[in-house]
Amino acid sequence: MPDSTAKPWAGRFARATDSEVEAFTASVHFDGCLYPYDIQGSQAHARGLQRAGVLTEEECKTLVEGLAQVRARIDAGEAEWDPALEDVHMNIEAMLVAEVGEVGKKLHTGRSRNDQVATDLRLYARAAQAQLDAEAHALQSVLVERAKAETETLMAGFTHLQTAQPVTLGHHLLAWYEMLKRDRQRLAEAFRRTNTLPLGAAALAGSGYPVDRQYVAELLGFDSLCDNSLDAVSDRDFAVETCAVLSLLMVHLSRMAEEIVLWASPAFGWVDLPDEYCTGSSLMPQKKNPDALELIRGKSARVCGHLQALLMLMKAQPMAYNRDNQEDKEPLFDSVDTALACLSIMRAVVQAMEFDRERLKVAAAEGYSTATDLADALVARGVAFRDAHHITGQVVAHAVECGLTLDALNLEEVQQFSPAIDAELLSSLTPERSVAARGLHGGTAPDAVRARVTQAQEELSVGPLAMPEQP
Amino acid sequence: MPDSTAKPWAGRFARATDSEVEAFTASVHFDGCLYPYDIQGSQAHARGLQRAGVLTEEECKTLVEGLAQVRARIDAGEAEWDPALEDVHMNIEAMLVAEVGEVGKKLHTGRSRNDQVATDLRLYARAAQAQLDAEAHALQSVLVERAKAETETLMAGFTHLQTAQPVTLGHHLLAWYEMLKRDRQRLAEAFRRTNTLPLGAAALAGSGYPVDRQYVAELLGFDSLCDNSLDAVSDRDFAVETCAVLSLLMVHLSRMAEEIVLWASPAFGWVDLPDEYCTGSSLMPQKKNPDALELIRGKSARVCGHLQALLMLMKAQPMAYNRDNQEDKEPLFDSVDTALACLSIMRAVVQAMEFDRERLKVAAAEGYSTATDLADALVARGVAFRDAHHITGQVVAHAVECGLTLDALNLEEVQQFSPAIDAELLSSLTPERSVAARGLHGGTAPDAVRARVTQAQEELSVGPLAMPEQP
Amino acid sequence: MPDSTAKPWAGRFARATDSEVEAFTASVHFDGCLYPYDIQGSQAHARGLQRAGVLTEEECKTLVEGLAQVRARIDAGEAEWDPALEDVHMNIEAMLVAEVGEVGKKLHTGRSRNDQVATDLRLYARAAQAQLDAEAHALQSVLVERAKAETETLMAGFTHLQTAQPVTLGHHLLAWYEMLKRDRQRLAEAFRRTNTLPLGAAALAGSGYPVDRQYVAELLGFDSLCDNSLDAVSDRDFAVETCAVLSLLMVHLSRMAEEIVLWASPAFGWVDLPDEYCTGSSLMPQKKNPDALELIRGKSARVCGHLQALLMLMKAQPMAYNRDNQEDKEPLFDSVDTALACLSIMRAVVQAMEFDRERLKVAAAEGYSTATDLADALVARGVAFRDAHHITGQVVAHAVECGLTLDALNLEEVQQFSPAIDAELLSSLTPERSVAARGLHGGTAPDAVRARVTQAQEELSVGPLAMPEQP
Amino acid sequence: MPDSTAKPWAGRFARATDSEVEAFTASVHFDGCLYPYDIQGSQAHARGLQRAGVLTEEECKTLVEGLAQVRARIDAGEAEWDPALEDVHMNIEAMLVAEVGEVGKKLHTGRSRNDQVATDLRLYARAAQAQLDAEAHALQSVLVERAKAETETLMAGFTHLQTAQPVTLGHHLLAWYEMLKRDRQRLAEAFRRTNTLPLGAAALAGSGYPVDRQYVAELLGFDSLCDNSLDAVSDRDFAVETCAVLSLLMVHLSRMAEEIVLWASPAFGWVDLPDEYCTGSSLMPQKKNPDALELIRGKSARVCGHLQALLMLMKAQPMAYNRDNQEDKEPLFDSVDTALACLSIMRAVVQAMEFDRERLKVAAAEGYSTATDLADALVARGVAFRDAHHITGQVVAHAVECGLTLDALNLEEVQQFSPAIDAELLSSLTPERSVAARGLHGGTAPDAVRARVTQAQEELSVGPLAMPEQP
Repeated sequence: MPDSTAKPWAGRFARATDSEVEAFTASVHFDGCLYPYDIQGSQAHARGLQRAGVLTEEECKTLVEGLAQVRARIDAGEAEWDPALEDVHMNIEAMLVAEVGEVGKKLHTGRSRNDQVATDLRLYARAAQAQLDAEAHALQSVLVERAKAETETLMAGFTHLQTAQPVTLGHHLLAWYEMLKRDRQRLAEAFRRTNTLPLGAAALAGSGYPVDRQYVAELLGFDSLCDNSLDAVSDRDFAVETCAVLSLLMVHLSRMAEEIVLWASPAFGWVDLPDEYCTGSSLMPQKKNPDALELIRGKSARVCGHLQALLMLMKAQPMAYNRDNQEDKEPLFDSVDTALACLSIMRAVVQAMEFDRERLKVAAAEGYSTATDLADALVARGVAFRDAHHITGQVVAHAVECGLTLDALNLEEVQQFSPAIDAELLSSLTPERSVAARGLHGGTAPDAVRARVTQAQEELSVGPLAMPEQP
Repeated sequence: MPDSTAKPWAGRFARATDSEVEAFTASVHFDGCLYPYDIQGSQAHARGLQRAGVLTEEECKTLVEGLAQVRARIDAGEAEWDPALEDVHMNIEAMLVAEVGEVGKKLHTGRSRNDQVATDLRLYARAAQAQLDAEAHALQSVLVERAKAETETLMAGFTHLQTAQPVTLGHHLLAWYEMLKRDRQRLAEAFRRTNTLPLGAAALAGSGYPVDRQYVAELLGFDSLCDNSLDAVSDRDFAVETCAVLSLLMVHLSRMAEEIVLWASPAFGWVDLPDEYCTGSSLMPQKKNPDALELIRGKSARVCGHLQALLMLMKAQPMAYNRDNQEDKEPLFDSVDTALACLSIMRAVVQAMEFDRERLKVAAAEGYSTATDLADALVARGVAFRDAHHITGQVVAHAVECGLTLDALNLEEVQQFSPAIDAELLSSLTPERSVAARGLHGGTAPDAVRARVTQAQEELSVGPLAMPEQP
Repeated sequence: MPDSTAKPWAGRFARATDSEVEAFTASVHFDGCLYPYDIQGSQAHARGLQRAGVLTEEECKTLVEGLAQVRARIDAGEAEWDPALEDVHMNIEAMLVAEVGEVGKKLHTGRSRNDQVATDLRLYARAAQAQLDAEAHALQSVLVERAKAETETLMAGFTHLQTAQPVTLGHHLLAWYEMLKRDRQRLAEAFRRTNTLPLGAAALAGSGYPVDRQYVAELLGFDSLCDNSLDAVSDRDFAVETCAVLSLLMVHLSRMAEEIVLWASPAFGWVDLPDEYCTGSSLMPQKKNPDALELIRGKSARVCGHLQALLMLMKAQPMAYNRDNQEDKEPLFDSVDTALACLSIMRAVVQAMEFDRERLKVAAAEGYSTATDLADALVARGVAFRDAHHITGQVVAHAVECGLTLDALNLEEVQQFSPAIDAELLSSLTPERSVAARGLHGGTAPDAVRARVTQAQEELSVGPLAMPEQP
Repeated sequence: MPDSTAKPWAGRFARATDSEVEAFTASVHFDGCLYPYDIQGSQAHARGLQRAGVLTEEECKTLVEGLAQVRARIDAGEAEWDPALEDVHMNIEAMLVAEVGEVGKKLHTGRSRNDQVATDLRLYARAAQAQLDAEAHALQSVLVERAKAETETLMAGFTHLQTAQPVTLGHHLLAWYEMLKRDRQRLAEAFRRTNTLPLGAAALAGSGYPVDRQYVAELLGFDSLCDNSLDAVSDRDFAVETCAVLSLLMVHLSRMAEEIVLWASPAFGWVDLPDEYCTGSSLMPQKKNPDALELIRGKSARVCGHLQALLMLMKAQPMAYNRDNQEDKEPLFDSVDTALACLSIMRAVVQAMEFDRERLKVAAAEGYSTATDLADALVARGVAFRDAHHITGQVVAHAVECGLTLDALNLEEVQQFSPAIDAELLSSLTPERSVAARGLHGGTAPDAVRARVTQAQEELSVGPLAMPEQP
């Protein structure tokens, strides 16, 4: 009979694995962290075997309790992981056999590592998705809170990093909220697709034992069953999709980070980052660098790289399981860890950053930011839009030449471009009136922003993704 | 007043655009195809302006009908596109002004190319998503049909491209169905997020006119409104997400293609591809190459590359619109066209390929494919699974050494590994009995496959994504 | 005998290609542009066949001249490309047969489309590499020229987008020169590896005719021969490598573009872009947007996406040629075209942009940019560097609190942090003295920059990559 | 005076770093492995400072020896790394100060972490490149050795995974050699560009001390100096380029792995992998899976993902150093480790795999593999190639219909397709004669393969990349 520390498949082999190959193929150094999910899955599997009549009630109890013991031992840091046992699954089985004796060898009946690892990974992924959603929800909450306090704060709105029109700071902060809202929708959808049970697929053809998969799914809180055993063991969509969702989320965080880095640069000076969110220079004593934000920006690349790795990994793989798939874990784990950390840091930064409302207001008035309002006013006086646009362009060109703002122009000179311009019109071209005029749904007017804040608070009141109940 | 063919923004500029720069920044050669969406969006915009009191009923009617004329002219191939007018939007406006005169210059009131192009692109994307879903649905239908006819057909199931266990061909074909099922779910979810109206956001701050955006949304069949004008013009999530969904879909098609290419190779000889789906060699007269499938496999790389391009494009872009975003179109268009063509070709190939059931059956019996059944039988006789696995491994090693299949082994020799083995057990190790034993939900047994075929037919009866009703 | 417009491999096939498959697999719409290379390669192949005794001198002459006729016809736009003939190779052969009759059918003796297309693509790639090098060289030349005129111009040097130390503008422009220098080295190395002859490999096993490959290589200006026929037809390293080189080059251009976009933003106002390199807004009449630069930045993503596509395309392909490889062309062609256009536009922009030396100088003095010089001065007076750094940090914190620049601080107050500080030291902390102190090789001092300008001019005097001589 | 464990930049800051930010920005857990390079660089820097008169001979000696002590302590596993000290640089400086006292604070004079880390990373990268080259050289050596023994072994050559022509196994193995030859050229070129000294650039503007950078470069074995300080601290081309080179190398290894996996599958049965290079199944006792090769194939995706991450990381970064760049290390380190392991495992597999020459030979004769030879023979008898190709196609179609090989066809029936076919011709269509006819340079004939083996042995006699001499 095989020694419990022997490889589970040693029977057929004449010679032992080469030690370099063993090290190369071992995964326990990175899949060991799946142990809570592996144990949870094994306990449900044992119960499924019992109900199918493969295990006695006594055997099942021994296994379930033995697995709990193993878990407690690992939680306590007392377990020893053996790379020669390849992966988390075989290590835990060996620990179980050491704990409960021969009956432990019955646990793997009717399953394979192929459906086992797919189950573990889905249990991990759904927990990660829920945690990510909670972090994204928390960041959204801070954004809404800060937006609420800045519904009236004027700032320069940019397109092409050139002054375009005045906007309100609260409106800008809510634009970030919207990005995260879509990210959270995608997380929730990925969660639903992840929360499906592969166990019972065995190696590829389905278990040879009449296990009630629906019962096992309920024990694990899965919503549904993988409907095809070949697909169940080869499908890694849930991992790829999670990385795709996180790639977009990280791109959003990188956009926020980019803007705050710009705003904190001396050329802008719109925002001050508290000391505790900055680091300094080893050479230049005056530096106060927005390092955390730069790292968030940089880490977006890391997660997108992982997504590409997963897509390339799966490309053109024949059915069913191939060992290539062992490479699915590290990109997924790292994407999750990275996104969690970046969401948390971004929340802290958004919470703590201090706006210089005075500089924001000054910027709002620069760069002929109300030129569009001039064109709109001309339209209101009956000029066709394209002509109004053209006239305004000429007025701006004239203002640039004179080095004056629009409202400081000589009225007579301006009227040569259009007689429809009068003194009242010129003097009305303020940022305050510009934003106030944009009160339609989704617009930057303080009232519209306040309305959206209220809506957003309602959206947030639903709370983040709930983990499934498990009996 | 500006000439209708002048650049819409020429008023402010002293010197004309450099011709090389003009060629470099022009997009009409690839965004011209958006014209039906651009016109549709403009017609709804005109109606919105009328309801807001900006246009008279007469003006609105002139614009809407003029746009219809322009569309008819373009449909008929009579339009001339001018690169100097940069993009589809300015070309169509110029055509409109040529058609209806001065009133055409009023169309752009209260909007910007920023919200205009976002609207066009969403109209395009949702139509593309619906078409993709219809193609994927059609491929699924053919898969189910072929699976239904092959529920009893035995074949070798592989893991690691080594014989693992016998499976049924119908089951294998349904594994492909499952992949597409997830792809279609993702398409439907992307559709919902795409089907949201950006119009009214204007350049970035919201339109300065009291347009009823809900009314415009209904005219265009959009489900909801973009809730933040800054986000509305800078958001390209719907394009990135579509490419992410298509990347996974293409990876699935590449997996199918890989398997059919393998099956069609002489070493397998499991499938014959009709001549009309193959091409030959310019040098080797005997060749019959599965080129279409190889191209599908290759094209998966193309779409994943587009996804990476889009993510990298958006990375760290500050708000709101930047010209970088012009680069969003070609990757999206090409991903859609590629996936549509590949889905269609794959359907034709799947429909037409002829299986060699005899060779499939022979392969099903090779490679000790029923060794798992031997282990299962030992478990049924009371041996712990790990021990049963070990014993079976020894039996297989012995069989390899003797060059015999399992059922042809000398019983006495085999019994030295375990006395639980008897003649009946050995003789029962056939592929037919192996697959029949896997009748649980998701298993490969003919009955289980038939049940899944019935379910799948119900799923398909819902039909593909419906395009929204538009008044 | 086959009709000259029939598929070259039709003999073995019972049924014609399905028209959808034909459209799907055809490549002539994008590989047609290879025609000059295809014809050049075919002429050399014909000469090789003659020398090997396979063709008579007369036949060879007919073929070579006939190919020249075909080329002239295509050049003149008189050729008709037929998608049913699949690709550029078969179209040209059909045109040749139409031109010279039956002898045209002898051209393909001893080769295959596999070695033919590899040859065409290498001829194309090396020409593209040479052209790219010439464009990069031209951009470098403009950079050096502009740097030469700005060796004394002070500006703020940034790290983390925070003011770090004063630098000279000429020095900054030369940093861009250095990036391009490495790009050009990589182009030259890729060129050497590209310039190798695959012809003679035939389909995969080598031609069955005793062609003198060295002679053919010399006719085509190739430096060496592909040494293995299997590798010769399956190797696409030269395409992947070219895209890798161009990805880095585009990342460099995106970095330059990012900086100029920042400098042109009103918050900086360091640079003015002439009207002819900007575009305007359809809504906001005052806008002058650096669109060309934003597009360059965006297009870097496109080329990196192509690189990823090519790597994924080649992944795990078995030997020798697979049709997947048809997908190698579009990413390569588009990467080349994109990089060529971006290099040219960037050169025009760099040539034309106007620096606001006054604002640059003001920025150079802000942000405690000379704090490092204070620390250095303390070191010169015997303080250990870490202590000097710490003291300077305290002085800067004090200055921030007082709202004063370093040289305006009250001496007595400053001396509480270190008695080593005296009035002369404080007053010496100017940007001019800061940059002058950095005269070591590679430093920002005007003298060092001038020295590097001289070196760079010498480097450029070598000129770009020369195309090989062809007899 | 600051405590030696305080942050090097604490002087300017009022509040301490937030602990979550500290954990987020710390890098010592992954950059700690750079310590030998950091210490080596610091020793050279100290010597440079001494020669520049900044340090006394005594101080320099103390620092150099103190650094050696620190290194010995770390080597011995006695060092304690403190995440609060952020990175490897500050940890080592703190250890140095603990070792040698106050003089340790002088070490950082005239440099910054920006040029320091760039130096460390280049020292690491060049060592990695040399080690990679040695591993690739070793794999090439095994390939040549095995090829030498298989110059006469016939096998089926494939295109499109369909039988194309017979080739020799030695020729096929040498195709892999050629791939690695190009990889090694690229490694050597990347090495040359990496081996350049950034030290002296300080933070961005150049050191304020008159250090002889050429002297420091010689101490460190660098070939040249970074010529621009801004570029020196922001350039990560060497990391990106290394990952690009390794991406292609990994794609090559994945292609080899794919082929061996195919050859080891039962459908082919061309190769047997010794037990020690395979692993088994936890469920299926008969399995012997080529896991190591599948992992190599999968790991190619990982490295390509890292390349994309690095390109995206650098995209659009303004000068000079930004903290984003901290993200350059893990992708580079992991790419190097992955490629080293895969090269080594692949060498072991290639060394150990056993070919089934009998099955290879049978496959060589199947699939009408000599049809091209029939066409060539017809050409030799005066038929134009295209016609010969067409006739052969008809003969093959006829043979397929009859279910016979070419040489077993009825002569009379064959002659209806062409009277040029006679009995001798038909009987000559053997794989042996087919390969023998392809003796041109690069062809598959045993003689040509032997000649290439001899050349390859000469190429390998040069040996791998040598590390630079360091005084």
